[in-house]
Amino acid sequence: MNRNEKILLSALRGRRTMRPPFWYMRQAGRYLPEYRELRARADGFLDFCLTPDLAVEATLQPIRRFAPDAAILFSDILVLPWALGQEVRFEEGTGPLLEAVTDTAGLAGLDGSDVEGRLAPVAETVSRLAAELPEAVALIGFAGAPWTVATYMVEGGGSRDFAAVKGWAYRDPDGFQALIDLLVQATVIYLRMQVAAGAEAIQIFDTWAGVLPEADFRRWVVAPTAAIVAALKAESPRVPVIGFPRGAGMLYEAYVRETGIDAVGLDTAVPPSWAAAALQPLVPVQGNLDPVRVVTGSDGMFAAAGRIVDALAGGAHVFNLGHGLIPTTPPENVTALSGFLRGLKKSP
Amino acid sequence: MNRNEKILLSALRGRRTMRPPFWYMRQAGRYLPEYRELRARADGFLDFCLTPDLAVEATLQPIRRFAPDAAILFSDILVLPWALGQEVRFEEGTGPLLEAVTDTAGLAGLDGSDVEGRLAPVAETVSRLAAELPEAVALIGFAGAPWTVATYMVEGGGSRDFAAVKGWAYRDPDGFQALIDLLVQATVIYLRMQVAAGAEAIQIFDTWAGVLPEADFRRWVVAPTAAIVAALKAESPRVPVIGFPRGAGMLYEAYVRETGIDAVGLDTAVPPSWAAAALQPLVPVQGNLDPVRVVTGSDGMFAAAGRIVDALAGGAHVFNLGHGLIPTTPPENVTALSGFLRGLKKSP
Repeated sequence: MNRNEKILLSALRGRRTMRPPFWYMRQAGRYLPEYRELRARADGFLDFCLTPDLAVEATLQPIRRFAPDAAILFSDILVLPWALGQEVRFEEGTGPLLEAVTDTAGLAGLDGSDVEGRLAPVAETVSRLAAELPEAVALIGFAGAPWTVATYMVEGGGSRDFAAVKGWAYRDPDGFQALIDLLVQATVIYLRMQVAAGAEAIQIFDTWAGVLPEADFRRWVVAPTAAIVAALKAESPRVPVIGFPRGAGMLYEAYVRETGIDAVGLDTAVPPSWAAAALQPLVPVQGNLDPVRVVTGSDGMFAAAGRIVDALAGGAHVFNLGHGLIPTTPPENVTALSGFLRGLKKSP
Repeated sequence: MNRNEKILLSALRGRRTMRPPFWYMRQAGRYLPEYRELRARADGFLDFCLTPDLAVEATLQPIRRFAPDAAILFSDILVLPWALGQEVRFEEGTGPLLEAVTDTAGLAGLDGSDVEGRLAPVAETVSRLAAELPEAVALIGFAGAPWTVATYMVEGGGSRDFAAVKGWAYRDPDGFQALIDLLVQATVIYLRMQVAAGAEAIQIFDTWAGVLPEADFRRWVVAPTAAIVAALKAESPRVPVIGFPRGAGMLYEAYVRETGIDAVGLDTAVPPSWAAAALQPLVPVQGNLDPVRVVTGSDGMFAAAGRIVDALAGGAHVFNLGHGLIPTTPPENVTALSGFLRGLKKSP
């Protein structure tokens, strides 16, 4: 093991580490009082994400409190549709609202020619973080996967049945492919920009990977992700890419085998013992404590975390949650969990 | 094969049938103009479910239009909390709203002593349907699984993160167990009543089975379902019970092996080829066309349905959707799909 290598990067490169490195999805966010105070300084959430002073500070807040092994850029997956020219708003309480793009005619209104220019503030945030982070803390950049970003772009926000986005994909697969291709290209530009600015690992969030039948999963989840991974690896072979196909169920293994990702994030429902047998021989795994366990805390939280660590001790493992931290999480529970994880040791 | 046995029951008893029998989850509902007309005759949705004249007619409407191989009782899984004394309302557009029960103190306000009395109208609906249905059409009764019903009872409605119900289960598993036990008892009473009134098969809907980690899945999904199945089988060994643990992912197999259910419903994301190898040797399987395929219709619908039928042709299969029909479904697409399924033949 390279003695100077950050523990998160060691694990993502497939090494068993002395303890599993840890970070938490949504470790920056509304459950922290200092975040709520900071958030009040910008009007819109998009402005907040695109103001480096604020995004840097939001990213650093949980690092100061919990000393996790990684920081993840504070941003949102929907800055990409915004950079393509789609109208994106965040309403308090109701989630994101987008001017829906539902067909090839709508696609004509999008413009992928200035992703770098429009997202330059994100590059600035990443480079300032790279300079300011404590030495041992790795910096993770991220983007939404094309399928998941497309669900918001086509549905115009969140959805229960995904009838609009699947409807387009089923009715007119070639037209929908054009949207996905545009997203692949823009995502590659956006992630290369993050790597150039100092991101040391990348996570691709595919929050809605689990709603597709198998053939469509391969076309709209696996293939676009594989294209992004190939493009990133061609330029930056040493930057690990973590894929998070939430809800993929028994298609997790196909996702790992067919996308070329370097590590895989497990959602809460994936049995760690199954992941140890089926996935960990292929790639390092990351996950997967139920975020509600961090709301309830106490012995139950430590016991559940310990079961995950034990089940995945035979290979490379990054400890994380199975989904993002919940706004009602008591920060002291995150402090306690971080102490617990910091105290773990296993034979190297 | 018993020549007089209904094709649905043959398949649910493990026999390969000449063609897969079919029915559709939410085959009665808002996508049908005659349903919307009928629905307008009752004020509240609960009143609608509990008025036998209306519930019988709603159940029969899709039978007349599509001649599926089964009718499913028109009702809602939330009649059970209502029968336990919880306040339940259905608001147009926002889904169900319940007076949330979040702890042991709240449990004291529930009363399981008159489930049969309060749900007597459902028994009347079932017995009238048993008399009125065409000879070849099987009658399916149903209930929500305790875990899924509990999510609505504790969250007070739908949820995104299930923080309230999981919070109770994690913080106070013994207290939450008391709620689950009450639901198991009430569900057994309710389903026995349906069988006594003429239901020939039962489906247990566990819509939110997929949000739990493995250990909690075993305790809150598998164990209560196993208890219900055992109680039903003790009295009515010939009535098949279909379990539908939506989203269970790689825990589908444990669910099948450990609950004792007679058949299993597959959600849209389950690969049929995987189900053919892992589940179909154990029990008949039911599913799993994406309901959005019935919205888009056309060649893509037939091709997707054909792939499922082919993949599951080696064993007992009931054709269905992977989730309920969507309100925007054109009824003529259901007509076309039903014709397609009716025309299938395979060597017996």
